[in-house]
Amino acid sequence: MIARLPLYLRSLDELGQRNPTISSVRLGAVAGVAATQVRKDLSYLGSYGVRGVGYRVEELRERLHRELGLTRGWGVVVVGIGNLGTALAEYSGLRLWGFRVVGLFDVDPARVGNKVNGLRIKHLDRMESVVEHEQAEIGIIATPAAAAQLVVDRLVKAGVRSILNFAPAVLQVPRAVTLRRVDVSSELQILSHHLARAAGRAAG
Amino acid sequence: MIARLPLYLRSLDELGQRNPTISSVRLGAVAGVAATQVRKDLSYLGSYGVRGVGYRVEELRERLHRELGLTRGWGVVVVGIGNLGTALAEYSGLRLWGFRVVGLFDVDPARVGNKVNGLRIKHLDRMESVVEHEQAEIGIIATPAAAAQLVVDRLVKAGVRSILNFAPAVLQVPRAVTLRRVDVSSELQILSHHLARAAGRAAG
Repeated sequence: MIARLPLYLRSLDELGQRNPTISSVRLGAVAGVAATQVRKDLSYLGSYGVRGVGYRVEELRERLHRELGLTRGWGVVVVGIGNLGTALAEYSGLRLWGFRVVGLFDVDPARVGNKVNGLRIKHLDRMESVVEHEQAEIGIIATPAAAAQLVVDRLVKAGVRSILNFAPAVLQVPRAVTLRRVDVSSELQILSHHLARAAGRAAG
Repeated sequence: MIARLPLYLRSLDELGQRNPTISSVRLGAVAGVAATQVRKDLSYLGSYGVRGVGYRVEELRERLHRELGLTRGWGVVVVGIGNLGTALAEYSGLRLWGFRVVGLFDVDPARVGNKVNGLRIKHLDRMESVVEHEQAEIGIIATPAAAAQLVVDRLVKAGVRSILNFAPAVLQVPRAVTLRRVDVSSELQILSHHLARAAGRAAG
């Protein structure tokens, strides 16, 4: 269910401010979710639509923000500021959803000292002190695979409780830490699988 | 099930070539999947382990490659060569898994003509002719959100059947096209939700 809430929020944003209310059918159509599922999910948040009118958009948006914790201003650090790390550090969604980017770290002398989006890249040696000082809660890993586990271990030790991993590596974290992974390689392999099956059908 | 196959493949790679065989318990431990599930998934591929010995690593790897269509050399185009697009175009996994990057496209005159990983960035006007000439099957979208749907429509019309979308937009494709999405914003929101719940529990 939680995975659908960001989708509803994005759908509301895409629909814009044209109407003060939205039906579950319309929201479902944009989000690609059945209307009955939309109603079920939103009732879980305590949002009930009015028959023939729908949901109040502003109220719904506010409930989604609250449920997703987007009003908390979580501190985020990004580790590994190559092309991917730079793209993530510059990602407008971070600010849009109320995250605070409080630290960018790398070990490459050619990168340390440069600025991305107004924030200076610091050496990895400084990571723990920044995490503690800024009370960062979220770590984004964009390092090479070989460095990722070590970086995660240090982040967790410094107090980070949520990790978003872009490195192509399977990482271990303690049970109390949430780890999510963006796995480009898996996504490509799944696409490849579908293509191969479609080609098999076409040939058969 | 399909979503776990890339995980098995990566786990085999992480374990390296030390042993010619691997048990379902060991493979499951590295992949983070129960051993019973590993055995079920692999039997579906026609791979059966030998009791007390396990699976032959090379044979298993070959079966996973075949099932995932990684032996086909699919042509890939990347559209939008900012930091993210550059990171994707340089991504070693693409070559490692046998994908051929056959086109990089942008509309920014400051980017068009530059090379990434030996391949020259072309203007978006050239996209259709490259897709057709190279028989590209996969399109990776790293454009701004506002441009994404238009680019996808053009890719589909040119014959691309699989889309991996990194743009923060909900896209529509015909039924015969596979669309997958890497949604950094959703991932961050899900982490935020977990943090908020944990904070609620700590306070309660």
